[in-house]
Amino acid sequence: MRHMAAPKLSVKELERLLSAESPKLFNPQSGLAIEAVWHGGCRVRRHFDPRSVRSGGTLSGPTMMALADFAMYVAVLGSIGWVPAAVTTNLNINFLKMPAPRDVIAEARLIKLGKRLAVGEIGICSDGEDELVAHATCTYSIPAER
Amino acid sequence: MRHMAAPKLSVKELERLLSAESPKLFNPQSGLAIEAVWHGGCRVRRHFDPRSVRSGGTLSGPTMMALADFAMYVAVLGSIGWVPAAVTTNLNINFLKMPAPRDVIAEARLIKLGKRLAVGEIGICSDGEDELVAHATCTYSIPAER
Amino acid sequence: MRHMAAPKLSVKELERLLSAESPKLFNPQSGLAIEAVWHGGCRVRRHFDPRSVRSGGTLSGPTMMALADFAMYVAVLGSIGWVPAAVTTNLNINFLKMPAPRDVIAEARLIKLGKRLAVGEIGICSDGEDELVAHATCTYSIPAER
Amino acid sequence: MRHMAAPKLSVKELERLLSAESPKLFNPQSGLAIEAVWHGGCRVRRHFDPRSVRSGGTLSGPTMMALADFAMYVAVLGSIGWVPAAVTTNLNINFLKMPAPRDVIAEARLIKLGKRLAVGEIGICSDGEDELVAHATCTYSIPAER
Repeated sequence: MRHMAAPKLSVKELERLLSAESPKLFNPQSGLAIEAVWHGGCRVRRHFDPRSVRSGGTLSGPTMMALADFAMYVAVLGSIGWVPAAVTTNLNINFLKMPAPRDVIAEARLIKLGKRLAVGEIGICSDGEDELVAHATCTYSIPAER
Repeated sequence: MRHMAAPKLSVKELERLLSAESPKLFNPQSGLAIEAVWHGGCRVRRHFDPRSVRSGGTLSGPTMMALADFAMYVAVLGSIGWVPAAVTTNLNINFLKMPAPRDVIAEARLIKLGKRLAVGEIGICSDGEDELVAHATCTYSIPAER
Repeated sequence: MRHMAAPKLSVKELERLLSAESPKLFNPQSGLAIEAVWHGGCRVRRHFDPRSVRSGGTLSGPTMMALADFAMYVAVLGSIGWVPAAVTTNLNINFLKMPAPRDVIAEARLIKLGKRLAVGEIGICSDGEDELVAHATCTYSIPAER
Repeated sequence: MRHMAAPKLSVKELERLLSAESPKLFNPQSGLAIEAVWHGGCRVRRHFDPRSVRSGGTLSGPTMMALADFAMYVAVLGSIGWVPAAVTTNLNINFLKMPAPRDVIAEARLIKLGKRLAVGEIGICSDGEDELVAHATCTYSIPAER
């Protein structure tokens, strides 16, 4: 229910803006998809890519960190509007179990949305599972001039 | 001086083992180079790659996180020997200033090297500069069976 | 509903054991109370104490950090039983807004409960409010010999 | 050598201001002493206090967290001058080994000193030892109006 609060930018608008303005981050090859956005959060997916498998048959840590950061970026932009110069100032991630080699889904939830700083937590699960494979907290700095 | 303590694996040995056993992580296209390894630490470089530039002309956060994680992995393996199943359990990173679009260098220093856990701190600078662009702490879990 | 799963130790048992064995941590003067325990989590309260007010009329950061750590300790013991030698290995806390000078309530939720490590997240609110004043993640190491 | 850069406030000035304006934090019973301050860092001591011993004969985690936060506060104030409304926004601490029941010493080093944010790392050792018992990173928010 809380998820129904309208975001400032819809999934379609975010996809269009990110593709146009941050094509290196978000493009058809990046494997990233935005599934839902609401005021204060979002759910994003990373499609399985054999290149991000590390030895042991699991997804690499950097793959998970990049996904957590992307989820937070989408949650921030969806909640404050298009401020692409927002930047990560801190990210803390705990790796909880080895993710299986398949899609992973991250859900971000903002726990503070101030004028200068946004703080969120991000849970990451393998597709179709409930148990977290990783959990992150992340702070973004929001530029004053916008 | 402290840097002179002999590692368990030399730069050459680490490069050969990583190339052979973790080719997705470490290969001629990954842009990563190991510059020095000593007992308890290492220095690694990420060659500039235009693909990791984000909007604003700076290197992306995930590029820095992946580099910090790689530096820690090399420092752990150099200090305990070839235990590739060592995995990150926690990484915390502070982004301090926008890195210029050029090579970045990470220096890792282990601050605990236990039987089950290794903890390190990693400073990242742009090539040729002293000021940190990012600073991370990282914990690796070392498997019991080896 | 998830909160109904039975813990290994009840509130009464935890209070009795902590008072007897960790009297410096938990005693009538510590201001700490355990409100509820379930498998995988707990809710604890810190009664307002004028001594923990810092300049500006808000509760001090160390007061919040100690509360987060205590909540995690109770959640771990409630879920694995009486293993008092469990120790914090990592705590990361984000301070989100100034807490008013009154009771604060922490709710801990374990996001991993392994044999060697437990990881949890802890949200802290002022009594009677929904908005978080602080949010922490915390890792405990569980000794092998028990 | 780097330690010789003059701070904005000396040890004597900091002690006087903290005692007068933050007497709950800094008073003869708090066990805290400022040993040295320089531009960008400081060294502080926490005198041994039997009340902060936890079961197992070691110092409690909250004791170490409070010390890390105090060291960072002193390093920030020593470097920017008397801005007591500076507040912690994030603290991440790794506990590396059990501290013996004696004095502990924290050394803080600022790794970023911006207009709005200061970031530092803090190493904590038992008195007379070199090995770290804990290591923290900490971010302070500096108010704009001063």
